[in-house]
Amino acid sequence: MKVAKKLVTGLLGAALVSFSAATLAHAEEDVPKLTKEEMQKASRIFFDRCAGCHGMLRKGATGPALTPEALKKKGLNIPAIEAFIYNGTPGGMPDWGKQGVLTKDEIHLLAKFLLNPPPPPPLLTWKQINDSWKLYVPLEKRPKKAANPHWKNFFGVILRDVGKVAIIDGTTKKLLNIVNTGFAVHILRTSKSGRYMYSIGRDGKATVIDLWMKKPDKVAEVKVCYDARSIDTSKYEGYEDKYAVVGCYWPPAFVILDGKTLKPITRHATSDYYYDTKDFVREARVASIVASHYDPLWVLNIKEAGQVWLVDYANVDKGTISIDMIDAERYLHDGGWDLSKRYFLVAANMRNKVVVIDTKEKKLEAIVKVGTKPHPGRGANIDHPKYGPIWCTGHIGENRIACIGTDPEKHPQYAWKVVKWIEMPGVGGGNLFVKTNPNSKWLLADRPLNPDKNLQRSIFVFDKNTFELVKTLKVPSDIPGRAVHEEYNKDGSEFWISVWGRKDQPTAILIYDDKTLQLKNVIKGDWVRTPTGKFNVYNTMKDIY
Amino acid sequence: MKVAKKLVTGLLGAALVSFSAATLAHAEEDVPKLTKEEMQKASRIFFDRCAGCHGMLRKGATGPALTPEALKKKGLNIPAIEAFIYNGTPGGMPDWGKQGVLTKDEIHLLAKFLLNPPPPPPLLTWKQINDSWKLYVPLEKRPKKAANPHWKNFFGVILRDVGKVAIIDGTTKKLLNIVNTGFAVHILRTSKSGRYMYSIGRDGKATVIDLWMKKPDKVAEVKVCYDARSIDTSKYEGYEDKYAVVGCYWPPAFVILDGKTLKPITRHATSDYYYDTKDFVREARVASIVASHYDPLWVLNIKEAGQVWLVDYANVDKGTISIDMIDAERYLHDGGWDLSKRYFLVAANMRNKVVVIDTKEKKLEAIVKVGTKPHPGRGANIDHPKYGPIWCTGHIGENRIACIGTDPEKHPQYAWKVVKWIEMPGVGGGNLFVKTNPNSKWLLADRPLNPDKNLQRSIFVFDKNTFELVKTLKVPSDIPGRAVHEEYNKDGSEFWISVWGRKDQPTAILIYDDKTLQLKNVIKGDWVRTPTGKFNVYNTMKDIY
Repeated sequence: MKVAKKLVTGLLGAALVSFSAATLAHAEEDVPKLTKEEMQKASRIFFDRCAGCHGMLRKGATGPALTPEALKKKGLNIPAIEAFIYNGTPGGMPDWGKQGVLTKDEIHLLAKFLLNPPPPPPLLTWKQINDSWKLYVPLEKRPKKAANPHWKNFFGVILRDVGKVAIIDGTTKKLLNIVNTGFAVHILRTSKSGRYMYSIGRDGKATVIDLWMKKPDKVAEVKVCYDARSIDTSKYEGYEDKYAVVGCYWPPAFVILDGKTLKPITRHATSDYYYDTKDFVREARVASIVASHYDPLWVLNIKEAGQVWLVDYANVDKGTISIDMIDAERYLHDGGWDLSKRYFLVAANMRNKVVVIDTKEKKLEAIVKVGTKPHPGRGANIDHPKYGPIWCTGHIGENRIACIGTDPEKHPQYAWKVVKWIEMPGVGGGNLFVKTNPNSKWLLADRPLNPDKNLQRSIFVFDKNTFELVKTLKVPSDIPGRAVHEEYNKDGSEFWISVWGRKDQPTAILIYDDKTLQLKNVIKGDWVRTPTGKFNVYNTMKDIY
Repeated sequence: MKVAKKLVTGLLGAALVSFSAATLAHAEEDVPKLTKEEMQKASRIFFDRCAGCHGMLRKGATGPALTPEALKKKGLNIPAIEAFIYNGTPGGMPDWGKQGVLTKDEIHLLAKFLLNPPPPPPLLTWKQINDSWKLYVPLEKRPKKAANPHWKNFFGVILRDVGKVAIIDGTTKKLLNIVNTGFAVHILRTSKSGRYMYSIGRDGKATVIDLWMKKPDKVAEVKVCYDARSIDTSKYEGYEDKYAVVGCYWPPAFVILDGKTLKPITRHATSDYYYDTKDFVREARVASIVASHYDPLWVLNIKEAGQVWLVDYANVDKGTISIDMIDAERYLHDGGWDLSKRYFLVAANMRNKVVVIDTKEKKLEAIVKVGTKPHPGRGANIDHPKYGPIWCTGHIGENRIACIGTDPEKHPQYAWKVVKWIEMPGVGGGNLFVKTNPNSKWLLADRPLNPDKNLQRSIFVFDKNTFELVKTLKVPSDIPGRAVHEEYNKDGSEFWISVWGRKDQPTAILIYDDKTLQLKNVIKGDWVRTPTGKFNVYNTMKDIY
């Protein structure tokens, strides 16, 4: 009906009126003044250091809300805010000043910035995305077969703070290439065939590397967000290597790309209502993505909204996307498949829970209470003689690993319960990754975020069956940095550990023999800067962890 | 991964910096100043008169964009804007000044308001929604059987500008009750059983009326948006009368309610990307909703985004909503089912097209070019001897009715083509509703938006088979107002026409005998103010049109 022709005489009601009043009142209020240049500088520092936890709109997520209203409600003025930024908090806020990352002037600027309303972040237009798309090697110029016979044992190693990905031959341990990717790469994934390896940068740049090339190199890239954390590909039969999907932090969205060329296809917003309060959250970010092998679907974890979205990509080429939006828990972070690959387990890291999604029935299966700030990465799957298949996660906030029964059919008494708490030695958590392999007897755990310098440099090796601590591996004393992220080679006969240091000095990648737990190789070189996640092609394509 | 602990040193890039600069530059610019009171008054006028076509955020929809940038780009200053508001345009913009609806002072204020950035509209919190919920009659106090044996022949009549709904016994023609509902009711719908009748107001207030009561009256209400146009209920087997769903204009969302009590259950945002440009549209509004009888799904038309969403409500009680998001065309408005109820046809009224959705296969079936600004209402279905089942729509922008073949199986040569253009006499369009009934020989069409006073007061009666004009019915000269909206009674033996006038004088509802086309009853009374849509219970519950 054409509303304009009608004598519409109603009113929006008190809310709009009072809102306008509030807006005006706010504009008239006395907020710290910033010049254009100061505003730009503060916006950039906030994006680099603060937005990940507090959100671009400062509504809070892993960290608390930082809007002027929220700060004032807590009675925080400029000196108080400066103190928080300088000293950090025991709850996880880093000591940006003490660490020397931010100067006193920068902290003062940031405090003033936070008392101003958040500037609305820019939208990334579809044209900007398309303009950023670069196809370096068209399909017809790509190899017809793999140049290297053991390409499935390649490792992609994230050199995080230098924005690169190293491709290493896991068989010969030789560096094959260093690929310039996005800034601060977050994760790597492979296509179903394993041939293509994808990286996603903190700057939203997706890169695809062709591992069949003599010198594996990037064949396409595209910047699809300002801020991103996740990428995966279509893995269902008939869709192998066909699509890639990027989960954006800002603008909050998922973007579907051609799997081989990264040509942008479509995107949908993830802004929605919190699953529990049902209030609107513009900044509902895609925390992580996994791809099902048994259906044409991706599991997207919508962090703030606390919803798991099962995105069916079968009809993308017909302009249709189908989504099951499942109310789960806040704030969703990362997770992985159980051993059967039917159940997806994801951390709700501010509620200290693990959410279990049944991707076959497309429903919430269970919510399991775990420890403080679970951080599974993709978790570790063990087929245990007593408990049956279990899935384990470590915690940032405490020194225990929780293992959850995942087999409701054959081991119903253990299903969706913590069947084993594994205590790690020493005080405090700081674990980021646990890992195992079907051919290994061990469960491995790191502690890079633990404040204790000794624990930071340790990898804890537990017996998979008895859960006893078998050995503590230490980074050799001549290599600076923290031990982070374990990854097995293709046959599970060895595992690799990154030594994560400052970007101004090289560190190393340590390779341990899985049987003897002896250090058998050290990958060194001037190029080994800030290595973090390592992804073996075979284990990644098969979701073995 | 805990980003804060990492030495993140990147940059957001030029866009954020230039955005901040632009924001600041804008704030410093010379825009017309408004006091707090003027801002409130202008916001209210804009919401009442302008937002329906131009959007709360003024990004444009049926009408063009009205942001300061858009106005300046066209070189429009205050006097030029005033002229548009005062005189209207041939394209459909009303002459608010000439009509005497807005004063010169109000128009001046509005022009200044438009050169200011749109104030962000308020969000409606879940608490506000729940606080607004009123359960007047709990389930246990409602009748166990219908008090009136011919309740399925009741009519709900919208008394639009007085914010009321009249319930009339279609058999006795007696007024049963006048129910206070939301401001400017847009439509009525019934539950699957027909017992409950729902209204949705322009103010987002949903009301449910129990037709089994001796004096049918509202039993519950809730305000779920600031602005809304659509409501429907769950009609699939096993879900009869279980849920209601409201489509909001602002905040852009759909809200699911308990069908019998209107208790709020959940909501999801509809803000998304335009289907074609893939750029973000915060104000992606739900233009209309229909409910399938053959699946647990609602068809939601997301106006600005140009997407049709098939919303599966089968797992609402498990906290899961499943949506097929189908790229279609802009800007989606209203529509209805074909005769088989498999296909849903909806106007894309700024692209002069009708979109056909196959709800069985959950896909876009066709896009049909029609005339200027199609406005089907729910359309009119005819089982034609030559063309088979066809569905007809009139147009606001031209004097033709387009009838489209809807049977790809048995009449493939006519499917998804305009098989017949029916020309109406006189110049110009202005049609809002066409209607027919399986037991009638006629196709009826109104012209209330035609500028010609004679055409405004005419209903055109066409032969369903030959498409010849059989008769032109005129509103009796002693009744002021325009003829609008046709509705049949239960057995199709008569049809009702509203006479739509000013709210300060009563008009009438005209009842014609369908066989003879003679005026047989005139419903009059002081209460008959601004009647528009009329909904016969049986025809509405069965989707007969």
